Amino acid sequence: MFVDPRLRELVSAALDEDVGRGDVTTLSTVSADRQIRGTIFAKEPIVLSGQAWAEEVFRQVSSDYGAAVYAPKVDDGAQVEKGGVIGELHGSAQAILTGERCALNGLMRLSGIATNTRRHVDAAGAAGPKIVDTRKTTPLWRSLEKAAVRAGGGSNHRFGLDDGVLIKDNHIVAAGSITEAVRRAKAHAHHLLRIEVEVESITQIDEALAAGAQVLLLDNFDDAGLARAVSHARAQDPSVILEASGNMTPERIARINHVAVDIVSVGGLIHQSRWVDLSLRFEG
Amino acid sequence: MFVDPRLRELVSAALDEDVGRGDVTTLSTVSADRQIRGTIFAKEPIVLSGQAWAEEVFRQVSSDYGAAVYAPKVDDGAQVEKGGVIGELHGSAQAILTGERCALNGLMRLSGIATNTRRHVDAAGAAGPKIVDTRKTTPLWRSLEKAAVRAGGGSNHRFGLDDGVLIKDNHIVAAGSITEAVRRAKAHAHHLLRIEVEVESITQIDEALAAGAQVLLLDNFDDAGLARAVSHARAQDPSVILEASGNMTPERIARINHVAVDIVSVGGLIHQSRWVDLSLRFEG
Amino acid sequence: MFVDPRLRELVSAALDEDVGRGDVTTLSTVSADRQIRGTIFAKEPIVLSGQAWAEEVFRQVSSDYGAAVYAPKVDDGAQVEKGGVIGELHGSAQAILTGERCALNGLMRLSGIATNTRRHVDAAGAAGPKIVDTRKTTPLWRSLEKAAVRAGGGSNHRFGLDDGVLIKDNHIVAAGSITEAVRRAKAHAHHLLRIEVEVESITQIDEALAAGAQVLLLDNFDDAGLARAVSHARAQDPSVILEASGNMTPERIARINHVAVDIVSVGGLIHQSRWVDLSLRFEG
Amino acid sequence: MFVDPRLRELVSAALDEDVGRGDVTTLSTVSADRQIRGTIFAKEPIVLSGQAWAEEVFRQVSSDYGAAVYAPKVDDGAQVEKGGVIGELHGSAQAILTGERCALNGLMRLSGIATNTRRHVDAAGAAGPKIVDTRKTTPLWRSLEKAAVRAGGGSNHRFGLDDGVLIKDNHIVAAGSITEAVRRAKAHAHHLLRIEVEVESITQIDEALAAGAQVLLLDNFDDAGLARAVSHARAQDPSVILEASGNMTPERIARINHVAVDIVSVGGLIHQSRWVDLSLRFEG
Amino acid sequence: MFVDPRLRELVSAALDEDVGRGDVTTLSTVSADRQIRGTIFAKEPIVLSGQAWAEEVFRQVSSDYGAAVYAPKVDDGAQVEKGGVIGELHGSAQAILTGERCALNGLMRLSGIATNTRRHVDAAGAAGPKIVDTRKTTPLWRSLEKAAVRAGGGSNHRFGLDDGVLIKDNHIVAAGSITEAVRRAKAHAHHLLRIEVEVESITQIDEALAAGAQVLLLDNFDDAGLARAVSHARAQDPSVILEASGNMTPERIARINHVAVDIVSVGGLIHQSRWVDLSLRFEG
Amino acid sequence: MFVDPRLRELVSAALDEDVGRGDVTTLSTVSADRQIRGTIFAKEPIVLSGQAWAEEVFRQVSSDYGAAVYAPKVDDGAQVEKGGVIGELHGSAQAILTGERCALNGLMRLSGIATNTRRHVDAAGAAGPKIVDTRKTTPLWRSLEKAAVRAGGGSNHRFGLDDGVLIKDNHIVAAGSITEAVRRAKAHAHHLLRIEVEVESITQIDEALAAGAQVLLLDNFDDAGLARAVSHARAQDPSVILEASGNMTPERIARINHVAVDIVSVGGLIHQSRWVDLSLRFEG
Repeated sequence: MFVDPRLRELVSAALDEDVGRGDVTTLSTVSADRQIRGTIFAKEPIVLSGQAWAEEVFRQVSSDYGAAVYAPKVDDGAQVEKGGVIGELHGSAQAILTGERCALNGLMRLSGIATNTRRHVDAAGAAGPKIVDTRKTTPLWRSLEKAAVRAGGGSNHRFGLDDGVLIKDNHIVAAGSITEAVRRAKAHAHHLLRIEVEVESITQIDEALAAGAQVLLLDNFDDAGLARAVSHARAQDPSVILEASGNMTPERIARINHVAVDIVSVGGLIHQSRWVDLSLRFEG
Repeated sequence: MFVDPRLRELVSAALDEDVGRGDVTTLSTVSADRQIRGTIFAKEPIVLSGQAWAEEVFRQVSSDYGAAVYAPKVDDGAQVEKGGVIGELHGSAQAILTGERCALNGLMRLSGIATNTRRHVDAAGAAGPKIVDTRKTTPLWRSLEKAAVRAGGGSNHRFGLDDGVLIKDNHIVAAGSITEAVRRAKAHAHHLLRIEVEVESITQIDEALAAGAQVLLLDNFDDAGLARAVSHARAQDPSVILEASGNMTPERIARINHVAVDIVSVGGLIHQSRWVDLSLRFEG
Repeated sequence: MFVDPRLRELVSAALDEDVGRGDVTTLSTVSADRQIRGTIFAKEPIVLSGQAWAEEVFRQVSSDYGAAVYAPKVDDGAQVEKGGVIGELHGSAQAILTGERCALNGLMRLSGIATNTRRHVDAAGAAGPKIVDTRKTTPLWRSLEKAAVRAGGGSNHRFGLDDGVLIKDNHIVAAGSITEAVRRAKAHAHHLLRIEVEVESITQIDEALAAGAQVLLLDNFDDAGLARAVSHARAQDPSVILEASGNMTPERIARINHVAVDIVSVGGLIHQSRWVDLSLRFEG
Repeated sequence: MFVDPRLRELVSAALDEDVGRGDVTTLSTVSADRQIRGTIFAKEPIVLSGQAWAEEVFRQVSSDYGAAVYAPKVDDGAQVEKGGVIGELHGSAQAILTGERCALNGLMRLSGIATNTRRHVDAAGAAGPKIVDTRKTTPLWRSLEKAAVRAGGGSNHRFGLDDGVLIKDNHIVAAGSITEAVRRAKAHAHHLLRIEVEVESITQIDEALAAGAQVLLLDNFDDAGLARAVSHARAQDPSVILEASGNMTPERIARINHVAVDIVSVGGLIHQSRWVDLSLRFEG
Repeated sequence: MFVDPRLRELVSAALDEDVGRGDVTTLSTVSADRQIRGTIFAKEPIVLSGQAWAEEVFRQVSSDYGAAVYAPKVDDGAQVEKGGVIGELHGSAQAILTGERCALNGLMRLSGIATNTRRHVDAAGAAGPKIVDTRKTTPLWRSLEKAAVRAGGGSNHRFGLDDGVLIKDNHIVAAGSITEAVRRAKAHAHHLLRIEVEVESITQIDEALAAGAQVLLLDNFDDAGLARAVSHARAQDPSVILEASGNMTPERIARINHVAVDIVSVGGLIHQSRWVDLSLRFEG
Repeated sequence: MFVDPRLRELVSAALDEDVGRGDVTTLSTVSADRQIRGTIFAKEPIVLSGQAWAEEVFRQVSSDYGAAVYAPKVDDGAQVEKGGVIGELHGSAQAILTGERCALNGLMRLSGIATNTRRHVDAAGAAGPKIVDTRKTTPLWRSLEKAAVRAGGGSNHRFGLDDGVLIKDNHIVAAGSITEAVRRAKAHAHHLLRIEVEVESITQIDEALAAGAQVLLLDNFDDAGLARAVSHARAQDPSVILEASGNMTPERIARINHVAVDIVSVGGLIHQSRWVDLSLRFEG
């Protein structure tokens, strides 16, 4: 959904990082006028993410090394089988060779996240909670990683420290109490932001709701405790929004997907994912 | 070994990404004059990397939110047990809370890479080949990820497209032949760069050596094929440098660590790593 | 409340704009070692805002032209009488003369906004609605102008298009209906954001509440219509948050401050303000 | 007259300020393929300025959100009646809604300055002095605000500290005397710059002319004093250029427009202006 | 005289250009804790310029590689004999070795310009015309090269296209005539800028003065023609400022230094200069 | 060979440096709709370099001032006689006049380097050593100056401190010995970099080769000493690459071009070059 105006800048910095003063191998071995065709394909089954990254990489190298066009063949979110074609390239061989690694590195990382997210979302099932990410993202990659989560069928939590109030354990320590922290947040945050509090016990649930929290983050409850916490909180305030987190693997999500939480947040969508295997093959 | 002059810039962009227009939770719930102490510790056994990242994060938030000091307690490369202390923080609670996630995200990613690298290096053993990374790195993070590889006991391959000539399969397709590609590279690359060629058969080894390649990348040979290729190449040119790659897990490295390759390159040091678990705990 | 990490950058660009290739008058007429003292004072009664701007201006010129120190004598938000001292300067005459105009331009603009806001807030009275700003701010100055509103006793609305959902008349036209617009927003916005809808009639109020809007912006109602709208909306949903806007002068605010709206938003806090008159006087 | 190469950069920063991580309202409520038409029109009589700003805003959002075209219907400097059309928009509804506020904020500010300037220029009359601005401009907006002054029929004073020598009261204090300040400026400034001195008395006029000043800024003289100062100065040096300043409202300008000053400079063209009221209306 | 706020940025880009991803030689061969002392000295007689460049280089590398201090021993403008010491260095050997080339490249270039300028200024003599530079400067180096001209005893012409009006032959072609060009410039340029016209004949001198030019650039006259042109122009307008240019070597300047021009402008101060020879010697 | 992705950025900064807030002469004297044709030609025989610079300058000014097209008539590396045409311009007179100086400054500098390089390469002859540059380049201009060297028939040494290991005298001092320095470099530099050592005596040659250096820089040997050093080194290690440097004028190169060094490096290709004379002539 979100368009990232910083994509151009990220890709430009990424190419600068890889290319430096120039791709000495390509520039010396390949003629400037050599035209070529190639295909990016999957070497294992994946859920795809990162087409905008790849398009931007080849757009930028084209302006420096000669025109090359990347034509995506499937959209982000698609499931691609082993051997399936992701996109086609044609144009300047210098441009394509210079951009290849940078484009693939983005596609492989982001598709890894989408593929991993899909497993969690499937475990939750259609009737289960929304699966959302956290702020445990690779610095400088948050917007793209959150798009990969959406490509895998997940949803997003807040995007940063400025578009949502989430009072966590360390804020409570620093503020003195949940009551005091919520009181201050209500006085200062603007009226379009809800206030969420991380709670780890029934006592904390009661204190947070009494203070006026509109959302609770139920952190690190075991399965039985989570069910009890949900019932308790809903009884106090039927309109409260409930989020659960803590060691949320696909297995556990499948186990608790009938508990009436609205949202399960999973850092591991991103930080426990691995790159999938993609490759660029030239037509000789 | 390498100092990264871009660290400041990366951290600044990372904080901008996370903090945006301001940390509304911290700024509203915690007083500007609240001082606090905290500890970053490991929640599982790790090899550490990323202390420079964490130091820079807290240095930068200090200049915007009030002074906070991060004191690393162990160096990059150290093995830290579960519960072991990585660093201590004291100063402005606002600064520490605002920087916490950004600092931890860096430490957890980089330590994940160092920890994963260590497993590969141990498999190679003291007498085995050097374990090196590849250009399959997270765009914008290469310098830090390569430092994490060193922290895990590995070594680095070239840093980008401009500090080494590596003629891969797609270059050969585009140039027409190994012979032609090497000829051109020798004519154009400056005299401090060696020329490496990716080869997948004995025939290609012969062609590359005849053309004057000084380094061979033996890609995707099976164990027996790799041993034969090494003997064959060494017989042709005793001074050739030999690098092997392709599906190099710790298990396979242990199996082939007696084959006389100089270098084994492993993309998975980085792209198959997962974040380790670290946490920041405040003293009440 | 909010710290602005971009202040440094804005001041740097502002000095660059004014100083260009160097202050030819100051550099030619004043010796580099000339030390001086001066005072910034008010030439009319004001509410002050902009001390951080002025401090940053003199900090930056000091690093280029020789040390000068700006010592603020009162805080943002203070009421300063005609002749009252705002801050004192001493150090390099070159630095002070080069930074003078840039520093004063910021202080005079921002204090103009704080002074104007104060008049609106006083009209609302202690028991009346919160007075908040809008997104009608000077491009590149939003963070500082919103701080000036707070200095004048006002509060802030959302900071940008990404930290709040406000469905306005043109969104409704584009989406087709209030119902459709709210339905989509609820599906896509993350759970820490409330959804506000601009309404101009009782019918729209009903549609917005039925769709699930949590906040209503009552726009351009006359005094009587506003009172009716508030009663009607509160009857439908006692927990709804109500914001009123449209031609909100201090006079009108005083007239309607007993109507039970939570918030009155006033673009004119900023866009109908004028600079106040401040001056820098040297001690001969 | 002046083209501003920094306009692109200013608009880009302004959009970044407003849009942040994405326009959550527009992106969630409006389909990416929704096309729309709209009109920007005046809600009060104005003199227009800012068309280049608006064009650039919609050009930039188009590249991120889908093509939208802004077609200006009148030029900067035009007088537009209440209800008069300023420009037309068509294309992606997402792009138009995302850019709307940023575009209007620029147009409303700059047209406010042009409209205010027009009042002063009319007061001076065709035979009267040139009306020029000062360096009391909104930091980062000088080039655009000076263009707005020209759109209102005014002229510009120097653009910064590097394209003109203007020795003001504080320079005289720092240099020791008018004589010394002018002597130094003549020795150091290049030969294409004239030297102007701010004077507040007949004695200072004499000292400045004797020292070789080519332009005098007659500051804060009352009406009678101004007439005397002009006669006196012209008698000393018929070729001297005379500028008057200090509390120059349209009323006072009308009163003194027969006094033979060449130039009247008015900070209030900019800093006493208010935004005019413009609006964007969609065709349903 | 002029302080350059862009020096930091230029040096940062210059170090980035040279150092790239890190100084592999220094970082691998020299220990991080190695301290060293060294001296920068002249290998031929020079006039010095560039100390601010060298200081900034070592200041920046110190913040990345360990503290090193550069202590200048003579000021810009000083004449240094062969073997004379320019500055001393001590501190981190890594920092000094990494910054050495970048620092010397700046000092050698700028001192070359200062040394060359001195020859021209000496040829003009104390009673002769001012020797000034032109806009024929190395792009990105203008401010530093103009400082080098001042270090060599020369003066500066305008700094760019925005701080002086100089109507050259191609402007005259484009405008249609000198008369038309001057008329327009007088209408549009602000009142602190003088108007200069390039002339190549007595006829053009007459036209330019009649149009109101205040400065004439007498271009490409031979020695006798130059004397005639000066007499002619002075007779028409005793207050006109006269600048001569075209093939101005020290020899020609010595020959014409009695002709009553105010200014001789010489592009060759900069573009015909060569680097002087400086070296950094370590104490073992 | 190398494409420079930073060219756009350099040209943009160069135009900003020259144009500042706008070309007041051109904008006031020439109408925005004035179209013109012109020719850039050589006023002396040259070897050309810098066409990409000129194209980029006119491309950028076109986007700000109205369309102008620069059509190069000869390629970099071409020999152009006095009066020969280098390129043609047509389009907006404002754009062409604003970009003229910046474009010519680049072409004149770079062609000066190409022309100077050609003299050295001719002295070496077809059978002689390769003539290469050094890191004595104008900061911020290295990539363009190295391209100019190639245009003149020369070759390039390493591009920076990160794409080659060159152990110079000061590194040896800091490391303690050649042996120690080479040992460390071999341990740390990646395997695609060769190691070069600067040597000034037969003893040092022996130490460097024994330590494993693959390239020797024979610095400051006299003619006879150079011949002896080459024979000695070749006898020790037939595969060693030999580079000679120190006071390498065309005369000396012609004298030693039969000595079997592989490479002669000459800082003076760049730092002893002077600008050639080019001019832009308008068709009336």
